[in-house]
Amino acid sequence: MRMVLVFFSILAALYPAAAQKSNRPEGAAKQAAPASAAAIAAQVRDYRKEHEAAIVAEFTNFLAIPNVATDTANIERNATSIVAMLERRGFSTQQLGIPGRGPVIFAQIKTPGAAHTVIVYAHYDGQPVDAQAWTGSLPFVPVLRTDSIQDGGQIIPFPAAPANYDDNWRIYARSSGDDKAPIVAVVAALDALHAKNIPLAVNLKLFLEGEEEAGSQNLERVANAHRDLLAGDVLINADGPVHQSGRPLVFFGNRGDIDLNITVYGPVRPLHSGHYGNWAPNPAYHLARLLTSMKDADGHVLVSGFYDEVTPLGALELQALREMPDNDAELMKALEFAQPEGRGRKLVELINQPSLNIRGLRSAYVGEQSQNVVPDRAEASLDMRLVKNISPDRQFERLVEHIRQQGFYVTSAEPTADERRTHALVARVEKGTGYPASRTPMDLPVARQLVRVVAEATGERVVQMPTSGGSSPMYIFENLGLPVIGLPIANYDNNQHSQNENIRLGNFWRGMEIFGALLAELRW
Amino acid sequence: MRMVLVFFSILAALYPAAAQKSNRPEGAAKQAAPASAAAIAAQVRDYRKEHEAAIVAEFTNFLAIPNVATDTANIERNATSIVAMLERRGFSTQQLGIPGRGPVIFAQIKTPGAAHTVIVYAHYDGQPVDAQAWTGSLPFVPVLRTDSIQDGGQIIPFPAAPANYDDNWRIYARSSGDDKAPIVAVVAALDALHAKNIPLAVNLKLFLEGEEEAGSQNLERVANAHRDLLAGDVLINADGPVHQSGRPLVFFGNRGDIDLNITVYGPVRPLHSGHYGNWAPNPAYHLARLLTSMKDADGHVLVSGFYDEVTPLGALELQALREMPDNDAELMKALEFAQPEGRGRKLVELINQPSLNIRGLRSAYVGEQSQNVVPDRAEASLDMRLVKNISPDRQFERLVEHIRQQGFYVTSAEPTADERRTHALVARVEKGTGYPASRTPMDLPVARQLVRVVAEATGERVVQMPTSGGSSPMYIFENLGLPVIGLPIANYDNNQHSQNENIRLGNFWRGMEIFGALLAELRW
Repeated sequence: MRMVLVFFSILAALYPAAAQKSNRPEGAAKQAAPASAAAIAAQVRDYRKEHEAAIVAEFTNFLAIPNVATDTANIERNATSIVAMLERRGFSTQQLGIPGRGPVIFAQIKTPGAAHTVIVYAHYDGQPVDAQAWTGSLPFVPVLRTDSIQDGGQIIPFPAAPANYDDNWRIYARSSGDDKAPIVAVVAALDALHAKNIPLAVNLKLFLEGEEEAGSQNLERVANAHRDLLAGDVLINADGPVHQSGRPLVFFGNRGDIDLNITVYGPVRPLHSGHYGNWAPNPAYHLARLLTSMKDADGHVLVSGFYDEVTPLGALELQALREMPDNDAELMKALEFAQPEGRGRKLVELINQPSLNIRGLRSAYVGEQSQNVVPDRAEASLDMRLVKNISPDRQFERLVEHIRQQGFYVTSAEPTADERRTHALVARVEKGTGYPASRTPMDLPVARQLVRVVAEATGERVVQMPTSGGSSPMYIFENLGLPVIGLPIANYDNNQHSQNENIRLGNFWRGMEIFGALLAELRW
Repeated sequence: MRMVLVFFSILAALYPAAAQKSNRPEGAAKQAAPASAAAIAAQVRDYRKEHEAAIVAEFTNFLAIPNVATDTANIERNATSIVAMLERRGFSTQQLGIPGRGPVIFAQIKTPGAAHTVIVYAHYDGQPVDAQAWTGSLPFVPVLRTDSIQDGGQIIPFPAAPANYDDNWRIYARSSGDDKAPIVAVVAALDALHAKNIPLAVNLKLFLEGEEEAGSQNLERVANAHRDLLAGDVLINADGPVHQSGRPLVFFGNRGDIDLNITVYGPVRPLHSGHYGNWAPNPAYHLARLLTSMKDADGHVLVSGFYDEVTPLGALELQALREMPDNDAELMKALEFAQPEGRGRKLVELINQPSLNIRGLRSAYVGEQSQNVVPDRAEASLDMRLVKNISPDRQFERLVEHIRQQGFYVTSAEPTADERRTHALVARVEKGTGYPASRTPMDLPVARQLVRVVAEATGERVVQMPTSGGSSPMYIFENLGLPVIGLPIANYDNNQHSQNENIRLGNFWRGMEIFGALLAELRW
């Protein structure tokens, strides 16, 4: 018996939300006898089972609208579709316009007598697509598969009758996971609460962005210009995937990001590699040499000052890291590699370090298309993830300085003939978009209560993470004084940011239940 | 006066062909009073000026037939077109078929009383094309420009009237330079000789290949199977560009070549670079590291044994190298780079060394298409040029061994999940096509006479080169006992092997005149 008590004490300390679930009577008494989050989730589930086909139809119609942020006409169509979707649920909406991009959509529902206001952030644009790289379907023609492609999932028709949908089925389409799923999950959850006559516990605001995957270049300006609309008590960031264990995830920070393109130059035009090979300088080789200089074989970044601004984690965060499941070995097996970077440190630890990643390479052609040339140029696209306190601009400048130290003449424009003739090594470095990291304290009352509701609604232990690996411009909202808490719903293997993006239906349904429970039960 | 005599003596030693021109009366007397090569060239020129539109029309109709070696239907159309072109000139022809590829076209004209047989080799296939990379026109829609694109050449209509064509005009199309030009130049030269009643001095055979740019994989088998057809006294290889100085070029060897593709593996699918960056291994980085290990910053190859089999050049070849124009500085200016590879050695010296060239790189996406991923794979395409005596297979094996020495597990097939999970570094190395180098002695009588005729026909000093940078499977003909002499006609800046391939009309016309003079005047 003592052993059991000790066990529960540890569990209560490690997983206060899960422990709270065992102490329901006490917790419920404090809260003027609300329905439990688990009961709300069950009612949302009942509603969903009767309306699966309609919910999925609304979702797939939304996914069928192409949503690359730079595709102005289509991103506007997405916005129009979202406004209609929200107004059908009684939201009042405003479109906060951005020239040449989709607007930020602001929407709210006021709840009489509610003490607090919850803001949900999500984005309705998606990553660029390479339709040819998709397997058996197209990015903007959603299809249903019986499982993931890797596990042999086959394309099947969307069933018209309700209650036919298997949790393991997946919808394949761009933004199915990142990040249209939570938008539809919230409205479907509202429909369920409404149908079951369950009142909201909070005022609800939505703040939906249309250029997150293009670097959220206007979000800060728009948020600051409309800070009155963002009056509230907490912002929930619904972007990203859940933990690889499948357990629900709550996170308190986001990596920042800064991306860039590097072009290294050879002869002014591609040259015959027989007539000029081993005399004309090869830009692909010089780029390889430059990239090699940036990291050691273990992945430790060699750029001077790269780790200087890292803020050490606090005791609470370190404890959370220790408590996180260690599934690195399983992940490596699933991802089919033998040796991670990071000198033996765990993935969750490394996410709290800045990164330097080569996200793409290109020079002339490879494979069937290859030509016997000395290429005229070689390009690399890099992204650097940031953690709390690192300035994107300073990190970018450190890298530029490193490139100079490798002997390169650095320019931000296409080099002139004179520049090319004067400097042995020429690199054009184009600064992309970026923003700093964010981190909210893990011990705020709203944080503890949110974790409790999620645990109750799902019946699972919540994975709590000081910082998610994903970048999201949450610093903007932190700067406005809002606590920001991440609450993703997508499966971890949703292929976000590449071909064959998908959402597992079981995760989508659970997202609906979590949002339903939060809207009805989040009190602090 | 003495100064002048000394000058001519040096010139005669350095450039016997050019000197020969000054000694015309004596030389002509030795040859039973033939017309001089210069006079023949002038007659060919007269004919050409009256038939420019028709000659160019035949050429452009030929260029309009797509000719990538793997495009079976179109490469056959090229062959049909060539056979018709030749039979109109009285050639007897044979198509030496190759399954799935264009045939080798053999054609001959017998000249009564001729002492020698000259075989001309050229190829009618072209490099693969990326139509989107071309500027203002398409690879298989020939256009006429008033100059090179770089020098502001504008597209103009092909004039219908003769004698309107400027020497600086250029035809832009795939294979305009490499290597359809000499085929058309030979038949147009024959037309001119016929029109001017000038008899041939030699029997003429053509041996025209349709898969040179795809590695001439069947040429050796076909040549050996038809060695009776290849009975002759010299083979002229009409592939490649003239010297960068614009002077005519005669060369006596070709680099060999072996190409390969390397794929380095990361996680089994592209991963979100925020959630997995600095933990998941980055294949683009590991590829960069591998490529960097292959050469030093000066371009010296670090692969063990890479230079072991190089045969030193003889005295005659070394002398030829010393005599070649040193225009490296001008070339660097034109090609807009500041620092060649090769530790200060001249381009013409370096061509007599084996090379290792990165001809292409690819991993995920760059620029506008870039995605925030850790790529699943990174690919490099390499080609290694060979010089006389280096075995393609052995050079390939040396590189594979080098890759192993860098810690890679090397496989020739797509690695299995088990292989990926077992080895920290996995490289798939796919061996491409290749063949050895060739080199014919520079002091054969036919060689000396050929250089004389070219010099007389053009009124220019001939650049003589022991080995051309371009690869061509001339070893096949050397192995059959034929001396092989290279005689290219295309301008050096013809962009062969990349976008915007072109031929300068002045070079094409000069090629006609050279072939006319050789066919009427080559005696030894």
